[in-house]
Amino acid sequence: MSRGDGHPGIPGRGADGAGRPAPPAATAAPGEADTAVAGDTQGPLALGKLTSVVLDALAEGAAARGGPLPGGGPDAVAERLRAACAPVLPEHGTGAEEALRTVVRAVAEGAADPADPWCTAHLHCPPLAVAAAADLAAAALNPSMDSWDQAPAAAVLEQEVTAALAALVYPRWNAPDALITSGGTESNLVALLLARERARATRAAGAAGVRVVCGGNAHHSVRRAAWLLGLPEPVVVDCPGGRLDPAAVDRALAGLTGPALVVATAGTTDEGLVDPLPRLAAVAARHGAELHVDAAYGGPLLFSDRLAPLLAGLESAVSVTLDLHKLGWQPAAAGVLAVRDTELLAPLALRADYLNAEDDGEAGLPDLLGRSLRTTRRPDVLKIAATLRALGRSGLGALVEHCVRTARDFAVLVDAHPALRRRPGGIGISTVLFRPVAADAAPPAEGDALVAEVRRRLLAEGRAVVGRAVAEDADGTRRLWLKATLLHPRATGEDLAGLLDLAADAAARIRTTHAQEPEGPR
Amino acid sequence: MSRGDGHPGIPGRGADGAGRPAPPAATAAPGEADTAVAGDTQGPLALGKLTSVVLDALAEGAAARGGPLPGGGPDAVAERLRAACAPVLPEHGTGAEEALRTVVRAVAEGAADPADPWCTAHLHCPPLAVAAAADLAAAALNPSMDSWDQAPAAAVLEQEVTAALAALVYPRWNAPDALITSGGTESNLVALLLARERARATRAAGAAGVRVVCGGNAHHSVRRAAWLLGLPEPVVVDCPGGRLDPAAVDRALAGLTGPALVVATAGTTDEGLVDPLPRLAAVAARHGAELHVDAAYGGPLLFSDRLAPLLAGLESAVSVTLDLHKLGWQPAAAGVLAVRDTELLAPLALRADYLNAEDDGEAGLPDLLGRSLRTTRRPDVLKIAATLRALGRSGLGALVEHCVRTARDFAVLVDAHPALRRRPGGIGISTVLFRPVAADAAPPAEGDALVAEVRRRLLAEGRAVVGRAVAEDADGTRRLWLKATLLHPRATGEDLAGLLDLAADAAARIRTTHAQEPEGPR
Repeated sequence: MSRGDGHPGIPGRGADGAGRPAPPAATAAPGEADTAVAGDTQGPLALGKLTSVVLDALAEGAAARGGPLPGGGPDAVAERLRAACAPVLPEHGTGAEEALRTVVRAVAEGAADPADPWCTAHLHCPPLAVAAAADLAAAALNPSMDSWDQAPAAAVLEQEVTAALAALVYPRWNAPDALITSGGTESNLVALLLARERARATRAAGAAGVRVVCGGNAHHSVRRAAWLLGLPEPVVVDCPGGRLDPAAVDRALAGLTGPALVVATAGTTDEGLVDPLPRLAAVAARHGAELHVDAAYGGPLLFSDRLAPLLAGLESAVSVTLDLHKLGWQPAAAGVLAVRDTELLAPLALRADYLNAEDDGEAGLPDLLGRSLRTTRRPDVLKIAATLRALGRSGLGALVEHCVRTARDFAVLVDAHPALRRRPGGIGISTVLFRPVAADAAPPAEGDALVAEVRRRLLAEGRAVVGRAVAEDADGTRRLWLKATLLHPRATGEDLAGLLDLAADAAARIRTTHAQEPEGPR
Repeated sequence: MSRGDGHPGIPGRGADGAGRPAPPAATAAPGEADTAVAGDTQGPLALGKLTSVVLDALAEGAAARGGPLPGGGPDAVAERLRAACAPVLPEHGTGAEEALRTVVRAVAEGAADPADPWCTAHLHCPPLAVAAAADLAAAALNPSMDSWDQAPAAAVLEQEVTAALAALVYPRWNAPDALITSGGTESNLVALLLARERARATRAAGAAGVRVVCGGNAHHSVRRAAWLLGLPEPVVVDCPGGRLDPAAVDRALAGLTGPALVVATAGTTDEGLVDPLPRLAAVAARHGAELHVDAAYGGPLLFSDRLAPLLAGLESAVSVTLDLHKLGWQPAAAGVLAVRDTELLAPLALRADYLNAEDDGEAGLPDLLGRSLRTTRRPDVLKIAATLRALGRSGLGALVEHCVRTARDFAVLVDAHPALRRRPGGIGISTVLFRPVAADAAPPAEGDALVAEVRRRLLAEGRAVVGRAVAEDADGTRRLWLKATLLHPRATGEDLAGLLDLAADAAARIRTTHAQEPEGPR
């Protein structure tokens, strides 16, 4: 291809006299190094200098922190950050290198770092270096996924990766599809939106719309999506033992007249439990209702041949939420919504002449606008693609298995610990609930208060980030537990033993303090 | 603070025998280098090796591309990407370095790179290196902004930066506030949601909800948000000359009975025009309606003392959309929604016991959940903060002024070009519309078709990325124009002269081809 078009300064281009003589010079007031752009052939050089500064600041910040999170609690953390970074919008800049050193170091020193094995509170994973590195390319190139002429190759990559993920979820369907979202919350929102539009298409105008039926164990984003979309409040049904009860769903559906969407969970936030998908699918089908599965946590079990059977029944769902920023080790955001047929995405179609004019479509320019609720959209697929290629399905499966194994090992350690007690029954995917036995000696409310205080004490001291969850005890009572969500792809049970002693010790210290207070325990 | 808690392997920690002996070893099947995590003190070393691979792949990809976008059109680009990256989900991985080299190089070679001055179609900015580098830290640390114990310092940084941006928009209000969003689309969505909830609070249940009144020049996300939220279709009013007409808004509001939200635009997508905000504010106030301003494009004019007066009246708005991934040179996403009083955000409040339990709040843990519609949320504030500090308000203002000046220079070049004609009248913020004079010689539909074909020809040949917009001509006829959106912080008019010759030449070549076809022009 000859491109003698006067585009200068770029290798492989001829100059025909109509173009510019050299790359653009800085004419703005700030220094050249501070206004360097990240793209083109010259960008990587400027970017390389600045990423070195960032990497040093990250290492220094982590060393200064010296643990999974900063000590001193919220006020102290806020004070340090403000002292380091004020004013955040100065009249005159400090230059790129100083700004990066200061801001990145302060944020790193004050981070709750999931790369530390004792940072286990949430579905908050330590990102793989390969994913974080790939994400740098997304930032530098800045493709926007809303039109072909902003993301020619990235759009194709997204098409390929979403097709592969959709096939993983729906291996027996002909035309499954998937969208990249900002996370499980957006995936659930789009799932409910699509259900609303399907219901609208089949019902008289003015009908109440689709009714969502979910468990008390469903993520809060399900109820929030219904609110956002103007749908009626979801019908919330019982979850004995933390799982959605098919009999309760059956009763709920029997009481409804219009279209309904049952939302089940594969990997609950509190316990990592998987709802009984095959039975729920059967109940939904019997009532002519549809099933959506929120597998934000559990979805990546599909990477493992050994664990995938835990998600049997998933294919019965009309749509499935996945999150690769949980068991997928991506930096946020890396959400996915899979649908069993690409036609189901039709309600998202949208025409905006500047992005997907009809004649451009007829001339062969792909229309990407119906692939998201967002317009400008970062290519989160780039880091996902690099990770899938680097590790393969089997490699990712091995990491998922590792986390599941670590949770089993951790549960054994809890069971062996004299001062701690595990929530009776099986454990979730990689989530273990436990509490100090001291909490059982106190009246129920005080016991729960002790559990909550242990967690806050560890946070304030900067020693560990442990979560909390309310769940049924053996006697059916709902109690507060400490929660460890084990997502570290390399940490082992052995790495976590000290965390248990720490929790037990905190409980003992709190009880001692309270016993010495004249007014007794709070 | 003494932390003799058995947390091993990290400087500054003592070991008391209860902890682990060393950092966690890899137990998963993939190689150690491929499963390295990005955080903690060791992560930056692993990340540094991989970012080097990424930077090389970016430079190689850009050199291979040799221009603003890949040549050959959609099919050729898709074929090359697929050939390089298949299979995207292999059974066994290729390792981190190979995967990054392959995927990043393919995406870079196939990118529409806004760092090239001839990539001017959209509000699609070349990110500053300082912002892209800071974003690497966000990926490596992976703070999630939905709870304090996932983002202790990042949450404070967000608080400080949003306060500074809110004060920039609302200097005369006591308690303005701002949210970080995924872009203008989400900002507009939240603005409409908040208006819906305010209307709901003041009206009987079952009322139709707030009615949106906007111009035909409003971004499509306004209508899409109304659809998503279950609101009635917006009332769309006239925009003579591309600006929302206050008299037309007055008439529209007079015809409505319930609560109304007028949505104005400061920087339209097609032309970069600013609606007459003071007059619109007065009209809205007269009818008891509220005003939201979508300043996704124009908002950063506030960084410049010289240009800020173009946004006079902005403070009358109840909420304002900004996008720092446009005139702010951030990689996506960097959206902002400013509100004139923090109380206006109350409808977003949400309780989820695992993230913001009531007793945790009483004990001093900040509640972050009401700051977004998302749950897991990347700290986009980190790159914004690094940029604000590096350049300062004056530095950013200088870059905005540079773009405005470049657009003026570009307009002069168009006016001087014998084969091109500029849309009559003033130009928008940094957007210039023009078309080949040859298009005027043909019948209207054929003229517009020629304009569209020039754009597609340049895209297919990989020579330039120019946009398109329909806008009124001097005679009131709506015609199709080529659009240059000038967001490059360093490119000058001189850099862009060749682009005009290219467009003129493409038009001439297309006409010659058509003239030689037996059936005449298409």
